[in-house]
Amino acid sequence: MSGAPCVFCRIVEGTEPSQPVYEDAHTIAFLNVAQATKGHTLVVPRRHHRDLTEIPPEEAAHVMRATVEVAGRLTRALRAPGINLWHASGETAWQSVFHFHIHVVPRYATADLTPPWTEYALPLASLRGLAEEIRSGA
Amino acid sequence: MSGAPCVFCRIVEGTEPSQPVYEDAHTIAFLNVAQATKGHTLVVPRRHHRDLTEIPPEEAAHVMRATVEVAGRLTRALRAPGINLWHASGETAWQSVFHFHIHVVPRYATADLTPPWTEYALPLASLRGLAEEIRSGA
Ligand SMILES: [Zn+2]
Ligand SMILES: [Zn+2]
Repeated sequence: MSGAPCVFCRIVEGTEPSQPVYEDAHTIAFLNVAQATKGHTLVVPRRHHRDLTEIPPEEAAHVMRATVEVAGRLTRALRAPGINLWHASGETAWQSVFHFHIHVVPRYATADLTPPWTEYALPLASLRGLAEEIRSGA
Repeated sequence: MSGAPCVFCRIVEGTEPSQPVYEDAHTIAFLNVAQATKGHTLVVPRRHHRDLTEIPPEEAAHVMRATVEVAGRLTRALRAPGINLWHASGETAWQSVFHFHIHVVPRYATADLTPPWTEYALPLASLRGLAEEIRSGA
């Protein structure tokens, strides 16, 4: 297989086959070969950006506009009553293809997936110092 | 507590307390009271939209631009080596507050969270009919 070293770049340039569900000037969307649920789709920018720490905000905005359109297609075509979005930046966060992408996962039942965390609410005041610390990262 | 019936609308209008980490003309971001990991933040549009099936693409694009900024702050301030994004639309997808929001979850170790699904790759050709069906949802 010729083409770019990145598999998603090869899909964009057409040297790697895919099953596309949507495309526009900035993005393409295609079925993930691992279908967490029926219709599991990846939305990617045509340009190569590694992750959230590298992608320009305008490029991420393009991906999100396309994601809204893809979610609509999945909802209409597959009658999915729910949708999850998932994104991973960094190996620590389980990123495996290092070309920015958003997973769009249609949901048909609450037991389709496993919750990635359990919710335990904390007292709001206990979070004050942490919020200040994060604001300092501006 | 007075104000809007929606808790995130009340946070936007300031009648419900929060621990904010970022804000701009279109969005605000604040710590989730359930901290899946240290720094777990929610990014929401100031305007009330229920979910992916109702939010205008431009509003979702604003939320994504803010999400890139919030991810940068978390990475810099907390030195998180990874970031996940998570979004739920619909009760079937575990949405619990019906004001559009994106979870930004810093990751410090691969065991911080539980994978929401397991990846089993399928033969690409087996997905052709499904891709056609979804494209018909345009
Ligand atoms: Zn690439
Ligand atoms: Zn609201």
